[in-house]
Amino acid sequence: MTDFHVYDTTLRDGAQQEGLNLSVADKLTIARHLDALGVGYIEGGWPGANPKDTEFFRRAAGELDLTCATLAAFGSTRRAGAVAAEDPQVRALLDAQTTVVTLVAKSHITHVTDALRTTLDENLAMIHDTVSFLAGQGRTVFLDAEHFFDGFALDPGYAMEVVRTASEAGAAVVVLCDTNGGMLPPQVGDVVAKVLTDSDTLLGIHCHNDTGCAVANSLAAVDAGAMHVQGTVNGYGERTGNADLVTVVSNLQLKQGRAVVDPERLARALHLSHAISEVTNVVPYSRQPYVGVSAFAHKAGLHASALKVDPDLYQHTDPSLVGNSMRTLVSDMAGRASIELKARELGYDLSGRPELVARVVARVKRLEQEGWTFDAADASFELLLREEVTGERPSYFDTESWRIITESRPGQESVSEATVKLHAGGGRAVATGEGNGPVNALDHALRGALATAYPELNDLELIDFRVRILDAAHGTDATTRVLIETGDGSETWQTLGVAPNIVQASWTALVDSFTYGLLRRGVTPR
Amino acid sequence: MTDFHVYDTTLRDGAQQEGLNLSVADKLTIARHLDALGVGYIEGGWPGANPKDTEFFRRAAGELDLTCATLAAFGSTRRAGAVAAEDPQVRALLDAQTTVVTLVAKSHITHVTDALRTTLDENLAMIHDTVSFLAGQGRTVFLDAEHFFDGFALDPGYAMEVVRTASEAGAAVVVLCDTNGGMLPPQVGDVVAKVLTDSDTLLGIHCHNDTGCAVANSLAAVDAGAMHVQGTVNGYGERTGNADLVTVVSNLQLKQGRAVVDPERLARALHLSHAISEVTNVVPYSRQPYVGVSAFAHKAGLHASALKVDPDLYQHTDPSLVGNSMRTLVSDMAGRASIELKARELGYDLSGRPELVARVVARVKRLEQEGWTFDAADASFELLLREEVTGERPSYFDTESWRIITESRPGQESVSEATVKLHAGGGRAVATGEGNGPVNALDHALRGALATAYPELNDLELIDFRVRILDAAHGTDATTRVLIETGDGSETWQTLGVAPNIVQASWTALVDSFTYGLLRRGVTPR
Repeated sequence: MTDFHVYDTTLRDGAQQEGLNLSVADKLTIARHLDALGVGYIEGGWPGANPKDTEFFRRAAGELDLTCATLAAFGSTRRAGAVAAEDPQVRALLDAQTTVVTLVAKSHITHVTDALRTTLDENLAMIHDTVSFLAGQGRTVFLDAEHFFDGFALDPGYAMEVVRTASEAGAAVVVLCDTNGGMLPPQVGDVVAKVLTDSDTLLGIHCHNDTGCAVANSLAAVDAGAMHVQGTVNGYGERTGNADLVTVVSNLQLKQGRAVVDPERLARALHLSHAISEVTNVVPYSRQPYVGVSAFAHKAGLHASALKVDPDLYQHTDPSLVGNSMRTLVSDMAGRASIELKARELGYDLSGRPELVARVVARVKRLEQEGWTFDAADASFELLLREEVTGERPSYFDTESWRIITESRPGQESVSEATVKLHAGGGRAVATGEGNGPVNALDHALRGALATAYPELNDLELIDFRVRILDAAHGTDATTRVLIETGDGSETWQTLGVAPNIVQASWTALVDSFTYGLLRRGVTPR
Repeated sequence: MTDFHVYDTTLRDGAQQEGLNLSVADKLTIARHLDALGVGYIEGGWPGANPKDTEFFRRAAGELDLTCATLAAFGSTRRAGAVAAEDPQVRALLDAQTTVVTLVAKSHITHVTDALRTTLDENLAMIHDTVSFLAGQGRTVFLDAEHFFDGFALDPGYAMEVVRTASEAGAAVVVLCDTNGGMLPPQVGDVVAKVLTDSDTLLGIHCHNDTGCAVANSLAAVDAGAMHVQGTVNGYGERTGNADLVTVVSNLQLKQGRAVVDPERLARALHLSHAISEVTNVVPYSRQPYVGVSAFAHKAGLHASALKVDPDLYQHTDPSLVGNSMRTLVSDMAGRASIELKARELGYDLSGRPELVARVVARVKRLEQEGWTFDAADASFELLLREEVTGERPSYFDTESWRIITESRPGQESVSEATVKLHAGGGRAVATGEGNGPVNALDHALRGALATAYPELNDLELIDFRVRILDAAHGTDATTRVLIETGDGSETWQTLGVAPNIVQASWTALVDSFTYGLLRRGVTPR
């Protein structure tokens, strides 16, 4: 594991993603998660370029207790015409007090002349001076050769000269960057191989996903001899993002048998990937390889019977190796086998109860014809299953009635007001809630009516609310499906409602959501 | 373009995605978009496997007027021990009346024995019989060899035998499927090359994205000689999804110089990808290669001046080739050129009116930041454009107020009642409408209030109503976008409303829809 570098740049290049904005505290939290994941290097930011990153390195020195990773500061070579030791930006890199400094440098002649506006020779001198100065100060220096692949295509001689210069000046790794992300795997492999024929420098790879090939490009570079791979967790980054380090590492380790991180750390990948997305506030991508919530979810009823016999026939790797697990989705392709499998996941053993399974299958099929779809609403399915297993549906209150009024007058915001009347905790409760929409008002009114009997509901938060109009041919007269996601700080669950009336469908999903939330806490009906 | 196959399976394999549920009308709409994109083949579904797909092919025969693509029906080889001509599933394939039939078959010995539970010889017989029967009935037969790569690794001889059998029986293409998605590009390339050394069959490739390499795997197969590539728009599909056909095609065409679709069709890729996601109601992935809204978005700052000098230094391809455009993150999507282009489509020549274009761009930018998206709502955009061109928004009535009450009591259907008060035709009108949902009731009340002044509205019918919740982090407190499709028997049009309150957003879209309907008939305000 020691001679292969897994280098994370979530905190620097990943933070370039549109809409992503990390505080210093966010960056420290993410760094701890990255360390837990087992990466070798964490690029923390660009000290001197902005006060936030300078502050990050100051606090990291005191507060970050890394168990596995080494911190790296990112910066550029000295300015043209300047002296490295006196360049404020280079001084800021030293002040960051990291073991590793990663320098970005130009290796594409047009970028040198047109963007940097200096000469090709001066660019080489800038690289040489900055690398040798920082190495002389005891830093391990990595050099990111920006736009390397495009530069190599245009002028391979100059691109090679950059690699040689950095290496001779003492760079420990020269990282070939596909900055614009336009490469395909065969090109990347060819260029890495060519550079290696001319140099014994340790090479790294840094890819962006503009052709959808960031992962494959990274692997092609490693196949060709690169020993250092850069990326970001969840593939965050500018434009289409960087290579997703979770996918790259999983492929290297689980597909190619390279031991690049501790297997016990990799087994926490799903948890850490999701924990990081909590910090970035970027909704996790359900189709993300290895760690997406759908990554090992199977829908086809066709497969379910065989899945029961041997799951390995239908999954490309053991999901527990990345902290994921196989799920079967209850869908309109569902047969008996997939219902049994799903029930087992939820902790109900239905084997030997064929009549019960048949009843559940029949009910699911009937509901699915009406537009219900349980594959995205495990909590609603579990309530249905419990009802069939125990003979009654869990119920915490009896609804008497509800009503919502939505009003608009020109020039004013429209407003919704809901009133809910119900019986719970031995008494009758009537509550009114306001909201900027009917469902929001209904949520507030229902919480109000249940507050005395079930104070536990205070912890519940509605996270997502989705509406799908089914059977669109009838316009506003169609059936509506509402999916609600609720969380209580430690877990989230999905519930479903289907009705011609969108408000009725929302009510059903809300009631299921509250019921499931109370049930999973072990609250008994009052 | 003729000898390379771009084969889309969005409607069949893509529909396996968790949470994705398409009606027959949805599938017909998506098929039209796929045809506009220029794919060669559209796999419509599995006739006989479920009534929805049978219905799709029935309606497709009459309603789909494809300009470019050929429709394919998907199904499996005959059952073990059966006669192909008498197998109901095979008959259903014939009944679908498509030019192409794509058969799925096993090529992995364990899947044959443990999942299909038949002998290796019988599996070959099933392939031979079904292919030759369908070919004999005049169908072009493609054979999807399921689990081919895993099967080849375990028993290459048998996997090859499947290819040979299908080919000898008359299959036009044998498609090698990485069904579990666990392959990496070098393996895929090797296997395709090996199969080709032993056979002159036309080979296809079908990849899933479980290693994050679906696109690269597809390209590796094509590099090795495959001439048929399968995938789905936006990479929809089970687990991590299928190869994203938009990315694969863009790479083949723009990176490798293969002419696989009409460039003018490819230039609509962004629009069509987003239009399809409106139908699937799956939020577009902003980091999607080529067509993601962030795909050509650059952080301003460091490279701003160089970007101005030569954008090609910082983008891997010309974004207009896929209908996208470069933007810097301070600015926004709507460029002057695309506004001018859209205006021209709608019959407004804005060339030579730069100040007007600038005003429209600024307004669209502001609205898009609030969640409006005119991609799928030409009618709302046309109303906005008219307002800017003529100085006033077309208006047929003045709203005084509206109110909706939705009520529920246990054991009864919930019901909505709307009251609309407005001025039109020289008088004040007050009307109440009932409906099975708030928007339905509002539609009825608005029609009632306008019936005397504008009897022309009787012909208008609401065809579709879609809701998208934006900014999901706030749960039911989020912004809502409502898209309404209306028809008058000869044409349909789309309008849009955005507001925190779903009812307010629906009202906005309804008013636009009625206004546009009157406008296009040349009705003058009364």
